[in-house]
Amino acid sequence: MEYRRVKDQENYDDLSQKDVESLSGRSLSSANTTASGLSSAGGAKGKSSWKLKSVVTLALTLLTSSQAILIVWSKRAGKYEYSVTTANFFGHGTRHGVTDDNRLTTSFDEVSVYPIPAVLYMVKNLLQYYIFAYVDAPAYQILKNLNIISTGILYRIILKKKLSEIQWAAFVLLCAGCTTAQLNPSSDHVLQTPIQGWMMAIVMALLSGFAGVYTEAIIKKRPSRNINVQNFWLYIFGVIFNLVAICVQDYDAVMNKGFFHGYSFITVLMILNHALSGIAVSMVMKYADNIVKVYSTSVAMLLTAVVSVFLFSFHLSLAFFLGSTVVSVSVYLHSVGKLQPQK
Amino acid sequence: MEYRRVKDQENYDDLSQKDVESLSGRSLSSANTTASGLSSAGGAKGKSSWKLKSVVTLALTLLTSSQAILIVWSKRAGKYEYSVTTANFFGHGTRHGVTDDNRLTTSFDEVSVYPIPAVLYMVKNLLQYYIFAYVDAPAYQILKNLNIISTGILYRIILKKKLSEIQWAAFVLLCAGCTTAQLNPSSDHVLQTPIQGWMMAIVMALLSGFAGVYTEAIIKKRPSRNINVQNFWLYIFGVIFNLVAICVQDYDAVMNKGFFHGYSFITVLMILNHALSGIAVSMVMKYADNIVKVYSTSVAMLLTAVVSVFLFSFHLSLAFFLGSTVVSVSVYLHSVGKLQPQK
Repeated sequence: MEYRRVKDQENYDDLSQKDVESLSGRSLSSANTTASGLSSAGGAKGKSSWKLKSVVTLALTLLTSSQAILIVWSKRAGKYEYSVTTANFFGHGTRHGVTDDNRLTTSFDEVSVYPIPAVLYMVKNLLQYYIFAYVDAPAYQILKNLNIISTGILYRIILKKKLSEIQWAAFVLLCAGCTTAQLNPSSDHVLQTPIQGWMMAIVMALLSGFAGVYTEAIIKKRPSRNINVQNFWLYIFGVIFNLVAICVQDYDAVMNKGFFHGYSFITVLMILNHALSGIAVSMVMKYADNIVKVYSTSVAMLLTAVVSVFLFSFHLSLAFFLGSTVVSVSVYLHSVGKLQPQK
Repeated sequence: MEYRRVKDQENYDDLSQKDVESLSGRSLSSANTTASGLSSAGGAKGKSSWKLKSVVTLALTLLTSSQAILIVWSKRAGKYEYSVTTANFFGHGTRHGVTDDNRLTTSFDEVSVYPIPAVLYMVKNLLQYYIFAYVDAPAYQILKNLNIISTGILYRIILKKKLSEIQWAAFVLLCAGCTTAQLNPSSDHVLQTPIQGWMMAIVMALLSGFAGVYTEAIIKKRPSRNINVQNFWLYIFGVIFNLVAICVQDYDAVMNKGFFHGYSFITVLMILNHALSGIAVSMVMKYADNIVKVYSTSVAMLLTAVVSVFLFSFHLSLAFFLGSTVVSVSVYLHSVGKLQPQK
């Protein structure tokens, strides 16, 4: 039992400290030291990993929240003729010199798994066009919260990680709270969704949940791998599939008006934000997990609404207050309901 | 510590077994047996008290739920000219022969506290007429959920009983869930409630919470007292104050048409139900507490809506499903979040 706890602690520290592969011999030998010595060392390491986890989670929350605000802002600001290059997307280079772990070149074995999340997201995005034959926009907004449930279930099944009973209860509350916060007078349409709509919504939720969980598995499989390199490989396939999608859907518009037609300063901010959010998502996946990511994006949704009150004199509904209360309690329960280390 | 636990156990068992005074000698003497013997005996007794607690709670839930259904039913059924007497209200006499504890005669000291809840409820009911100057009916429905919070706070302050952190979280969820389940397109009016409306709603919630907590205190102060006698004294003052209210408000109607004008079979059922609910409330107060009562009536509210789907082809909203989910999780958390006995 004690041994197991030590091992878990090690795995965790592996994730939070780069390049630990070579040190695994050291960790194994340290398993012979006294339990008290270990737990105090674990405590110090746990604290620094907790800090990193908090920082990346906060970054993701703020970026996701400002993303939605930028979208509204760009819609309201009208169009500027402004051209940008995509050069700055990759402005987050390596800082530690070239080592085995931050070198871009890699084996086919490692890279072969990276396209999978991109394919899953692409299929999901394609389905999105068909689901509107069965559900309207407000209902779709509501159905998207099924993602929360699917992520929780797939996280449990695929990554085989456990949540405590209270954390499961908190996760159900998160889903109910987010949905409540988004309620509006036309939300009840969702109850008239035909069976095909439900099936597609569930498939989309599973695809999106599976993509998230799979990404976490890829990133965590090689904890010592530089996160920027992992991100590069994840994104390069995303970019390829998106280009294909653009060619299929917007070929005419792009050919006639140019790729960067209608870009404004806000558009640039949006793209920059999108790129940074992508990095933040990967870091949350590396140093925390999909559950934390779901909490982060849910809280971001509430933050967006609150900020919109000041920026766009948005009106908050009673349902929003109730949903926010439920989400807040859910966050609290998730943190107090942590599984106790087995005795 | 151990002594105190034993004492609590005794009090509790007194509550769960009728007329236990004659046995109190036995319980006191048993306090001398070993701690392990006590705790196993406590376990068996705890189980029987748990059973009683469940039965009275279930009864209250079903009675409260059917009460609301009867109200709708009686409105829809139209009026029958049917006269009833109130004789059957008190058809729940004592069954165990006259002892000190089920004898109706009592000291002034004991009876003097019984009018207090009745006065509190009367003041609250009077305020109800004035609050409609500031809030409309759907908003009032929403504001009534403040009762849940006020009951929790007063239960903590006045009865000095503790809830665990998770149970407090569950209680906040209960309030949010009940309110969510009652949301309708005009619920947002509540956000425009003027400060006077809020103040009155808060005062009403405090009055009602205080009345509930005070009733529990009265009933539990004399755990050996027969519950029917306690009920009699609680109700007699309720009846007196109600008669005064009827005289003030409906004097003309009662004088012209007679006290029982417009009574139908359903009205009789309603009155019977009301009387039985009153008994169930007192029993829940005696064998459980105000928190259980609040959970019971909240679940009853949801049950009523579900039954109404079949009886009156009532349509359930998405908000109802979300609120019910939150309430269900809250009930679950309340039961798993019990305070562990101090070590």
